[in-house]
Amino acid sequence: MVDLDTIKELVVESPAKIVLLVMDGLGGLPLEPGGTTELEAARTPNLDSLAARSSLGLATLVAPGLTPGSGPGHLALFGYDPLQWLIGRGVLEALGIGFDLHDSDVAARGNFCTIDAQGLVTDRRAGRIATEFNVELCQKLGAIQVRGAQVLVEPVKEHRFVVVFRGEGLSDQLSETDPQQLGVPPKPVQPLAPAAEPTARLVNDFLAQARQVLAAHYPANMVLLRGFAKHPSLPTFAQLYGLHPACIAAYPMYKGLAKLAGMDILPVPARDEAHGPTIAEEFATLAANWQRYDFFFLHVKQTDSAGEDGDFARKVRVIEEVDRHIPELLALSPDVVVVTGDHSTPALLKMHSWHPVPYLLYSRYCRPDGIAEFGERACARGSLGNFAAAHGLALMLANALRLTKYGA
Amino acid sequence: MVDLDTIKELVVESPAKIVLLVMDGLGGLPLEPGGTTELEAARTPNLDSLAARSSLGLATLVAPGLTPGSGPGHLALFGYDPLQWLIGRGVLEALGIGFDLHDSDVAARGNFCTIDAQGLVTDRRAGRIATEFNVELCQKLGAIQVRGAQVLVEPVKEHRFVVVFRGEGLSDQLSETDPQQLGVPPKPVQPLAPAAEPTARLVNDFLAQARQVLAAHYPANMVLLRGFAKHPSLPTFAQLYGLHPACIAAYPMYKGLAKLAGMDILPVPARDEAHGPTIAEEFATLAANWQRYDFFFLHVKQTDSAGEDGDFARKVRVIEEVDRHIPELLALSPDVVVVTGDHSTPALLKMHSWHPVPYLLYSRYCRPDGIAEFGERACARGSLGNFAAAHGLALMLANALRLTKYGA
Repeated sequence: MVDLDTIKELVVESPAKIVLLVMDGLGGLPLEPGGTTELEAARTPNLDSLAARSSLGLATLVAPGLTPGSGPGHLALFGYDPLQWLIGRGVLEALGIGFDLHDSDVAARGNFCTIDAQGLVTDRRAGRIATEFNVELCQKLGAIQVRGAQVLVEPVKEHRFVVVFRGEGLSDQLSETDPQQLGVPPKPVQPLAPAAEPTARLVNDFLAQARQVLAAHYPANMVLLRGFAKHPSLPTFAQLYGLHPACIAAYPMYKGLAKLAGMDILPVPARDEAHGPTIAEEFATLAANWQRYDFFFLHVKQTDSAGEDGDFARKVRVIEEVDRHIPELLALSPDVVVVTGDHSTPALLKMHSWHPVPYLLYSRYCRPDGIAEFGERACARGSLGNFAAAHGLALMLANALRLTKYGA
Repeated sequence: MVDLDTIKELVVESPAKIVLLVMDGLGGLPLEPGGTTELEAARTPNLDSLAARSSLGLATLVAPGLTPGSGPGHLALFGYDPLQWLIGRGVLEALGIGFDLHDSDVAARGNFCTIDAQGLVTDRRAGRIATEFNVELCQKLGAIQVRGAQVLVEPVKEHRFVVVFRGEGLSDQLSETDPQQLGVPPKPVQPLAPAAEPTARLVNDFLAQARQVLAAHYPANMVLLRGFAKHPSLPTFAQLYGLHPACIAAYPMYKGLAKLAGMDILPVPARDEAHGPTIAEEFATLAANWQRYDFFFLHVKQTDSAGEDGDFARKVRVIEEVDRHIPELLALSPDVVVVTGDHSTPALLKMHSWHPVPYLLYSRYCRPDGIAEFGERACARGSLGNFAAAHGLALMLANALRLTKYGA
């Protein structure tokens, strides 16, 4: 992977605008041997037509055979080598709810859970309690005091919350408490390095107090913590590439990832606030903010959700819905367009998978492959080859004429 | 990238002869969407026929999205990772004119320029003075004496020259003096590291004296220096691969690059000395020296020049001219032939670009793709894939049966 500093030194000014359209979990698999993937099955006349004028390839997010989490997948799309830059889930969740994380904070993802009289976990998600109940309980947890750190607790959705331990000299080298199975007690936090012992002690103190505070609040009568992490302090898009980037996303985690890269998070006005913004509303937000930024990351979550549910047909429909918005995107005359995913989520597997993702790169200066189809097998024939996704950001910059030549 | 020492340990004797034919800036782009590239447009029956018996691919010289300068592009073709081996322009220029650079020398590329009465630059190239005037002025500059180093000044062409500072303990960590714009004075040399301060001082002393020496020689009444560099001391083809290599090139820079790799620079007899050798004369030189070497680097500059001029049709004609010499090359019965470029120079962009270059590898032992066409999209379908060009040298050695197996 090229060092980011090397790319930084090549950056020059350009008025060109770049759109990175990510359909979460885009890559798929045929349900039956000989069949088509979700993307191949979808009727996508607009993406196919764009593909004919684009360079295609298959992007490997982390490494062949490695299934990317959402963090590494997006970091790669943003140009950060995901084997070098690691981001804990606690940090992602914290940033996703707009939490102002300090460099020395340790954040963790929390779940309310249900334990029985013996303290054994009977539901790892506390029956997915209502968000309002979550808010109330987080206030109680936030009142807990431990020696050596301030405790900040913020609700996310349903049973999920973020806890942040704020203090000096804290370590994120901590094991998680989620036993990942029922009928056993939550695990205590273990220090994963000697220097993490004081932090482990204070987190265990918090957990003991949390159990008392929540005792009367069945089914949410205990918490599970995982993903202890500190802020990774990524160099930003502005620092690296001189870009003024914006993120359009519906879900906290993706906003959090974009924020790490220094993107402005655009509010997406949603008619149905309970269900959050639609794909149409995300594209409308792109158009409404077109003049204000030169890089847009537009994230569509629904492809992944359908894949996770094993719903091949719904994933096809989501892809077709995105396709219908492509003319609206092209009407803005973007200079560079990339359409891809942050990983594969084949309905067949009902989970993230290791398969490389289709990658379409359009610009006036790309070298079109002349393949008039956007699909896994079409992309496998493309001139980008099977490439490391983290190279994609340099490709976008190059196509935006934002990189001068390397060496004399 | 494989370590060069690893490859070196695998090298065995072989009588096989290798030809690396580089058409500078070979890769292109269609002028209009849906069109063909320069190479695709060119009528190349001989290359197409060779392609049918070859392995094809697209070579990425530096990294996806990074536009190679001529130095990094050629280093990659010669098997040196261009992100690891850096060569300053001063060194390239010095070697290109056959200057015998010592390991402790610091070389810089110089331009004669024009300054006005206030010392502000009015022409960064001094109206591209005639080479004879340049020769005369270089003699005057070469008489300058500074404390701590010997000053050697050699003319190149028109307004360009090379200055070499010869002494002990000199540093090349120096900023350039070319302000890259008009109406401002030349910049003083700044040390980029504390150890470079004495060298910066003596170069600034040289510049002050140069201004006096040149005062009466309008329009060449000042100089601009850039690309301060020391010899990179590359391991040579002989040391690494046991090859006895020769370079056939018309332009100084490419001879300089070949010399860095330890190649003999073959004189190319030219009927028209003013315009330098023709492509035909380069191929004739190849035939004339066939028995004397086992590796030939033959460099054709005109493809790049046409691309830089934005002259699609002329680039097509140059490619067709090279194609007509392919039978002459094959008549020598080379064991391994590679035809490629050191970067793309699409006429559409009128400059070097980041697009990978078509790569054709022929030998009796290659695995032919059966694609009877040499072009960007044909190569995109080839079995070499989109690969890092620096791997190509090992491929050539392997096809020459010059590498034994790795590991037991």
